[in-house]
Amino acid sequence: MDRTFSRIKTQSLNRLDLSKKGSVDEDIEHVVSLLNSCEQFFTTSSCSGRIILIDGAAGSSDAHKQNCVWLFVSHQKCTCDDLMSGLSRSCGDAVLKFEPFVLHVQCRRLEDAQLLHSVAVNSGFRNSGLTVGKTGKIVSAVRSTHGLEVPLSRHGKLLVDEDYIQFLTQTANQKMEENLRRVQRFFQNLQSAVLAERQQIPDSPGTQEHQDSQHTHKKGRRGGQGSNKQNQLNVYKLRHQHETDGCHGYGASSLPELDDCLDLFT
Amino acid sequence: MDRTFSRIKTQSLNRLDLSKKGSVDEDIEHVVSLLNSCEQFFTTSSCSGRIILIDGAAGSSDAHKQNCVWLFVSHQKCTCDDLMSGLSRSCGDAVLKFEPFVLHVQCRRLEDAQLLHSVAVNSGFRNSGLTVGKTGKIVSAVRSTHGLEVPLSRHGKLLVDEDYIQFLTQTANQKMEENLRRVQRFFQNLQSAVLAERQQIPDSPGTQEHQDSQHTHKKGRRGGQGSNKQNQLNVYKLRHQHETDGCHGYGASSLPELDDCLDLFT
Repeated sequence: MDRTFSRIKTQSLNRLDLSKKGSVDEDIEHVVSLLNSCEQFFTTSSCSGRIILIDGAAGSSDAHKQNCVWLFVSHQKCTCDDLMSGLSRSCGDAVLKFEPFVLHVQCRRLEDAQLLHSVAVNSGFRNSGLTVGKTGKIVSAVRSTHGLEVPLSRHGKLLVDEDYIQFLTQTANQKMEENLRRVQRFFQNLQSAVLAERQQIPDSPGTQEHQDSQHTHKKGRRGGQGSNKQNQLNVYKLRHQHETDGCHGYGASSLPELDDCLDLFT
Repeated sequence: MDRTFSRIKTQSLNRLDLSKKGSVDEDIEHVVSLLNSCEQFFTTSSCSGRIILIDGAAGSSDAHKQNCVWLFVSHQKCTCDDLMSGLSRSCGDAVLKFEPFVLHVQCRRLEDAQLLHSVAVNSGFRNSGLTVGKTGKIVSAVRSTHGLEVPLSRHGKLLVDEDYIQFLTQTANQKMEENLRRVQRFFQNLQSAVLAERQQIPDSPGTQEHQDSQHTHKKGRRGGQGSNKQNQLNVYKLRHQHETDGCHGYGASSLPELDDCLDLFT
């Protein structure tokens, strides 16, 4: 099983990056490198977070991405001029979105996926979850609730004034900043968790070998190697509040099976 | 294990509903009832989808829900007057959100959670995922990407005109309609999957008993009992397109472990 996982990992990391961009976003290279340096993980897709202006089919209530034109996309902060310039090319229904950090990681065993999931949830990525395929493939998805989705034009006609676009620019940029803070928290918690695990299994076969291994197609490895001892938080000890937010939800505090790391309402 | 799950299920369903609303939303009673009629599942929280206007702390870039005032909330369609009336009470930073259907289901075994997950993904709920706790608690979360998040006021001052609010009302209501179509698709696919599973295990102990069991705290059970034979789709056969959307993503089509039901990029 371990050998099979290792083979799939090598195959996957050697494969062409099929995304439009064709490379890992700069702001998360260290996260992707850290994960790929662990024998139990490899990343299959990622996005550091982006501001995107899309032009949907005019009049469509639920335009699919396939039918959309990208008027503007940035993985960094943007300016009001960037958005106004993109909007000037709209001939359909333009929508501004902030899409936060997203990451998919294939995991060797369920326990590995659980570790990653608890790190994600404890770092603020509350929409994270696992996928377990029928053939046993385990993928941990790291996702946030932190978005923005603002319709701005209808049939190419702008619905708001430039002051509002200026305000939205600030809002989107603030969300980008907060997103990167969460990514950094995730990175630090992941480092601590990986370190804690390695300390628990001092002679784990292959650990050192993988720690030192080269990555086949990553541009950099910023921060991925250091065992930052200041960050030895016990990620499992962080607790979360249950939020029911006005919809149906049962109190779970008296459940004997309640985990202290995972939240029913993630 | 099964007896333990059954005991936890009974305890959970007998517990007080701690949500603000205190009951299951009307539009998803049949979904919740169907799930709770299956011995392998019970729901722990749900929301049918809602239009919500919240007033965040003025000037805060990332106001937490705890610090927000709810200016308006509806699990049905809304009118422009509803939103204008809510906005007139804003003294901070008001944001309009459409939040789609969300459901958390505790599952007996991992296979049960996988079944529910593939039904969810195949019904369009692409942000769904599992949570597996350290003590073995398995929760399947059904989530959609289908949202709306529009900042509308700053320090209590409206940033857009009433025509735009009128347009947003239509947009939010269309999203509510599409959301309910997806819920219905989920319900039908779930019925088919449950039926197919029962047919595979004709004398499964307790199946009939649970099929006929009463629910302790659900208001209704619309549609939950019928075994709709028209809907005997094989949910596993539905396929999804991989979307890389311009960020890092490896092609998985040549992976020998590729499932035909679950998508790497969910």
